[in-house]
Amino acid sequence: MTSKTFAFQGAPGAFSHQAARMYAAQIGDEASYLPCQSFGEVFDNVRSGAATYGVIPLENSSIGSIVANYDLLWSHDAFIVDEIFVPVHHHLIGFEGVRLAEIREVFSHPAALDQCRKLFKQNQKMSARVHWDTSGSVAYVKESGKRELAAIAGEPAAKEYGMAIIQSNVEDYAHNSTRFGLVVKMPADPKNMPSQGLTAPYKLSLVVELAHEPGALAKILHELAHLGANLTKIESRPIAENPWHYRFFMDIEIKDAANDQPLLAALAAKADNMKLLGRYKVAEAFVSQPA
Amino acid sequence: MTSKTFAFQGAPGAFSHQAARMYAAQIGDEASYLPCQSFGEVFDNVRSGAATYGVIPLENSSIGSIVANYDLLWSHDAFIVDEIFVPVHHHLIGFEGVRLAEIREVFSHPAALDQCRKLFKQNQKMSARVHWDTSGSVAYVKESGKRELAAIAGEPAAKEYGMAIIQSNVEDYAHNSTRFGLVVKMPADPKNMPSQGLTAPYKLSLVVELAHEPGALAKILHELAHLGANLTKIESRPIAENPWHYRFFMDIEIKDAANDQPLLAALAAKADNMKLLGRYKVAEAFVSQPA
Repeated sequence: MTSKTFAFQGAPGAFSHQAARMYAAQIGDEASYLPCQSFGEVFDNVRSGAATYGVIPLENSSIGSIVANYDLLWSHDAFIVDEIFVPVHHHLIGFEGVRLAEIREVFSHPAALDQCRKLFKQNQKMSARVHWDTSGSVAYVKESGKRELAAIAGEPAAKEYGMAIIQSNVEDYAHNSTRFGLVVKMPADPKNMPSQGLTAPYKLSLVVELAHEPGALAKILHELAHLGANLTKIESRPIAENPWHYRFFMDIEIKDAANDQPLLAALAAKADNMKLLGRYKVAEAFVSQPA
Repeated sequence: MTSKTFAFQGAPGAFSHQAARMYAAQIGDEASYLPCQSFGEVFDNVRSGAATYGVIPLENSSIGSIVANYDLLWSHDAFIVDEIFVPVHHHLIGFEGVRLAEIREVFSHPAALDQCRKLFKQNQKMSARVHWDTSGSVAYVKESGKRELAAIAGEPAAKEYGMAIIQSNVEDYAHNSTRFGLVVKMPADPKNMPSQGLTAPYKLSLVVELAHEPGALAKILHELAHLGANLTKIESRPIAENPWHYRFFMDIEIKDAANDQPLLAALAAKADNMKLLGRYKVAEAFVSQPA
């Protein structure tokens, strides 16, 4: 049993921390955890070798892509070697014995606040306050000592700081869940790319920049269909240096490993620019609820 | 000359307010303005008739789509009748005579903070603080009376509240600009859809939900190419009630008005669900810097 260090964004008890724990249990390795202030810091710790894995949220079933991480995948030499789906149940967390009607300000990560809009519609006296992290906002409320403050976070965060759940499951959608990517440092030689020798079906994550001409994207997608690959996700992001041009992030399910290299070669030939971001087995939750 | 009321998100002096003023000048109508706390409130004022137009940011050249507005276009019966591109120059705004090195906290709308990341990298003693609006954050700093606070906003906001520009053009990219949509209330009868009788080239905005089968998106894009239409923008958004399924928002340039109805019919036939969101002339800035 080897020991792995997982870098994640947030305070101990954050959903990214939970994703790291679940993944460590899944691969059966001893684990230590490295909380980071920002997603950029997670990527930096993977690059420096301080962390074996970075655990980054890629998309949530209710609010969509965490686009900051797509941009970081583009700009860093990291490689996705696995994905994991984590059910995300949010709770309103505050001081023991506080009633719902007493709460005035609710702190959390903006993504979590976005997943709990109905709570604020139903409780007009509560204001949403942006904080750097879900679990970190529980610590903040505790430190404040103010009983009219609360936080939105998961159950582990309440336990971490010994605070009470005032209302459970405040997420808008009961099946709220987040897909995380596990990233490692990209080796200098692409031939030593991690996760070689996977057996199909598996997924590729990649990004392409296309010539601005009618049908450019259609041609790429036609090529995928022709090689029997299934596009499970597409996300466009602006090329900031080149206004109103876009790059496209894609997840592609490969059903026959023999198509892997021809597909990458075909995309590289048709795109102005292409970067392979990951190759990994299809996680279970994904198969049961396909994209 | 008729009078039009423009609803926008933000305080007077916000970039959405500037977009509304520019658009009013362009169409030559007398204008009044209705500031709103949230994007949802802008749509509500258009639906109720309190505003003739809602002015909503759709995407920014540096940070990408304002996805909240895509979701609101899906859930509301509003129709895009025009688009306008606005150059977005951000300034660090505070009290007269304050030096850069004295500033500790900088308030602004999260989208504006995202467009000015280099400022915070270069000035490690400054912390970014999320506020509801760019111009509103100038008002907030003024009211605080604290000289170590500053805001990020446009020049009109500094004028609006009589505050000083401490550092100008703090946006990461000099060509930073935002594309706004002008929305009106959707008529009960689709035959009375506004902006009928446009001459080509013009744009359609629409959203499709597709069957989850390999190549579904490729087939739609192939259809567009076949009818000589150019996809200028595609954005995927999650269907929150149906985890890991997506709807696709598209902007399509129509070069021959005769293709408009056949194209919509073909898309409606191939999609599980389709909604037309707008039909409008292609704005100038877009032609000079195509997507």
